[in-house]
Amino acid sequence: MLKLHEGSAADTGQLMAAIGRKARAAVRPLAIASTAAKNAALSAMADAILRNEKEILEANAIDVANGEEAGLSPSFMDRLKLNPARIGAMSDGIREIAALKDPVGDVIAEWDRPNGLNIERVRTPLGVIGVIYESRPNVTADAGALCLKAGNAVVLRGGSDSINSSAAIHACLVEGLKAAGLPEDAIQLVPTTDRAAVGEMLKGLSGNLDVIIPRGGRSLVERVQTEARVPVFAHLEGICHLYIDKSADLAMAVKIAVNAKMRRTGICGAAETLLIDRAVASTHLVPVLEALRDAGCELHADADVLKAFSDATPATDADWVTEYLDAIIAVKLVDGVGGAIEHIETFSSHHTEAIVAEDAAAVERFFNEIDSAILLHNASTQFADGGEFGMGAEIGIATGKMHARGPVGVEQLTSFKYRVRGNGQVRP
Amino acid sequence: MLKLHEGSAADTGQLMAAIGRKARAAVRPLAIASTAAKNAALSAMADAILRNEKEILEANAIDVANGEEAGLSPSFMDRLKLNPARIGAMSDGIREIAALKDPVGDVIAEWDRPNGLNIERVRTPLGVIGVIYESRPNVTADAGALCLKAGNAVVLRGGSDSINSSAAIHACLVEGLKAAGLPEDAIQLVPTTDRAAVGEMLKGLSGNLDVIIPRGGRSLVERVQTEARVPVFAHLEGICHLYIDKSADLAMAVKIAVNAKMRRTGICGAAETLLIDRAVASTHLVPVLEALRDAGCELHADADVLKAFSDATPATDADWVTEYLDAIIAVKLVDGVGGAIEHIETFSSHHTEAIVAEDAAAVERFFNEIDSAILLHNASTQFADGGEFGMGAEIGIATGKMHARGPVGVEQLTSFKYRVRGNGQVRP
Repeated sequence: MLKLHEGSAADTGQLMAAIGRKARAAVRPLAIASTAAKNAALSAMADAILRNEKEILEANAIDVANGEEAGLSPSFMDRLKLNPARIGAMSDGIREIAALKDPVGDVIAEWDRPNGLNIERVRTPLGVIGVIYESRPNVTADAGALCLKAGNAVVLRGGSDSINSSAAIHACLVEGLKAAGLPEDAIQLVPTTDRAAVGEMLKGLSGNLDVIIPRGGRSLVERVQTEARVPVFAHLEGICHLYIDKSADLAMAVKIAVNAKMRRTGICGAAETLLIDRAVASTHLVPVLEALRDAGCELHADADVLKAFSDATPATDADWVTEYLDAIIAVKLVDGVGGAIEHIETFSSHHTEAIVAEDAAAVERFFNEIDSAILLHNASTQFADGGEFGMGAEIGIATGKMHARGPVGVEQLTSFKYRVRGNGQVRP
Repeated sequence: MLKLHEGSAADTGQLMAAIGRKARAAVRPLAIASTAAKNAALSAMADAILRNEKEILEANAIDVANGEEAGLSPSFMDRLKLNPARIGAMSDGIREIAALKDPVGDVIAEWDRPNGLNIERVRTPLGVIGVIYESRPNVTADAGALCLKAGNAVVLRGGSDSINSSAAIHACLVEGLKAAGLPEDAIQLVPTTDRAAVGEMLKGLSGNLDVIIPRGGRSLVERVQTEARVPVFAHLEGICHLYIDKSADLAMAVKIAVNAKMRRTGICGAAETLLIDRAVASTHLVPVLEALRDAGCELHADADVLKAFSDATPATDADWVTEYLDAIIAVKLVDGVGGAIEHIETFSSHHTEAIVAEDAAAVERFFNEIDSAILLHNASTQFADGGEFGMGAEIGIATGKMHARGPVGVEQLTSFKYRVRGNGQVRP
């Protein structure tokens, strides 16, 4: 099984420095790798994952046994556990990434200048991407494949609780790279559970990491915010809001509220706060809250809501800034779309917000005045997902505003350069 | 005249914290400000600068007298000194920014999903931008106006040697904001020469700065790289290369080489290294080097070049990584386009590189395999400029690969968000 690197912190420093150098050395061959070569590698990876199902499950069994012994939570264990269906989905996911259009070399914009210069803005890889993640071993496959498709080298640092599973999956990715003649160091997995390795990545591996993508809970995000010396695609929590305007169709409001909260409560696009226009408190509030309650949702309601619907817990200040990731929703009455905007701009994590309304002017204000990555009209917040956006696979939902925002797919893993064609122009 | 903030480091900390809070408070009104209001403000700023020419020149005279007393270099003093023509140009520059298309609200992409959802990617402001710059007082006007056009609040930290000039210009910008009813805090100038203010900005003003744009020499860039805790649009030096391929038209090569180096030697797009294909050493080398020498350029040549052209200084290792910003160029023979690519990928600062060639395959390799912000074919490196690219004004040339790369104009000062329109869709 996996040969873990064991040693002192100084050893981890040397190990990580070497990983950084090897990743940087892979950047140029990857940047000029053909689409065919990258797709051949991805296809071989997908095959290798199916072929090595037994090895992956055996490695996963070690992680699961260790996790049970350590008393990890049921939801954590659920994310950790693999089975043939999940392995098949992982393999299919890589094939879907192979089928995506290669973003590298794509001409994003082109124009001519009066002096005859022709200018193109062309997509390029970013360079070396660091991905720091926690329990889900499938991120190893998803992130490795996505970064490769965009021509990037990647350094993967999975959670220590899933390291055997990740290593078995990573071995399949390396098989694919070898089969296609691409550098093996294009996708590296950090082979140690030493937390110092994360610190080294956050310092940037001596300039050999170009961007870090953290995928994890609040403690990881906070560590990244404090320590990172390289650019980060911030992925904060999703405190997503659903606002039901006085102009909302009631049946639609009920349907969207239940879906936004209850379809899957553990994803970042799940609604966490429900805002209802005070003007329709007498008509819309009770049916929406009854539907949520009947679907198994716990309600944390402000005083005004409690007056109309007593089967709820009084909300506290903490409720407006809590990402429950559970069958709980905070509920509040607001004064129209203006009140909703005010509440959202105060408490949102700028991830995803939705409005149910028939009034076009209210929708327009909601769309213009709220500064979140994704705004939806008459649709569930649970559509906040790269696949649902048609981007194919995604590596997460960025809540920052630099470079990437919203779903991070292959295009968001690229930079660009300018190609300027002349016929002897000099600048006057 | 300017009331400078005087006090202890703790005072500077409080001052900067207040600046950050005021900037953040301006973000929402700016984000929803109409194009008409922003343009009215810009137009009023341009008027105010002309109307206050006398006050600006008087303030500048104080800076110039202080600079002479301090024995600042002639080139520094040249950048510092204002005159009526320069003030007119500053005013015209702001009017040109007013004439640019407003990027905010621009729909960059739009598509439909099979489930009927319509998705738009729409430009938004970035938020609060910090600009740290040195001697040129006109950056106060350019940066302030550009950030406003893109709907951002900006905190300007000019050089201490030009603080009186910058303050006089800033007063005109505030006049313009007031005239248009926009928040005065949209454009703030840091009113202290305490270097601790830069440190506070690099720490991000308690989350109130979204990105920093450093415009300055190596010491500023290094300080930013070490201390910055917020995203930075890196603006490294421009070690720009000109490569003359064996397929180059000789007359064109001579003309472009002289222009790329000598048109203006002090700008970041000036060529600093000349690479000549060994295959045409006997035909192209001497005419190109003679033309450069006759134009007043000093040549630092490698041993192979010296054999064919003795009127040059032997190059040392330092020459390949030096941004002269002067009438000096390093010259080297390379083995075809492959050798040029190898040299450039080793020594370039990834700013701008040009190839003179008639061979389309050589150009293609040069364009594909070099990872610099701007690549040019048969054109001078001195076209590396936002104005020459048709972007209108620019705030600098970014050499990083995150978010902005190449000229940073109004579009590069924006982020985006997604607007999704449905008619009741819930996620299955």
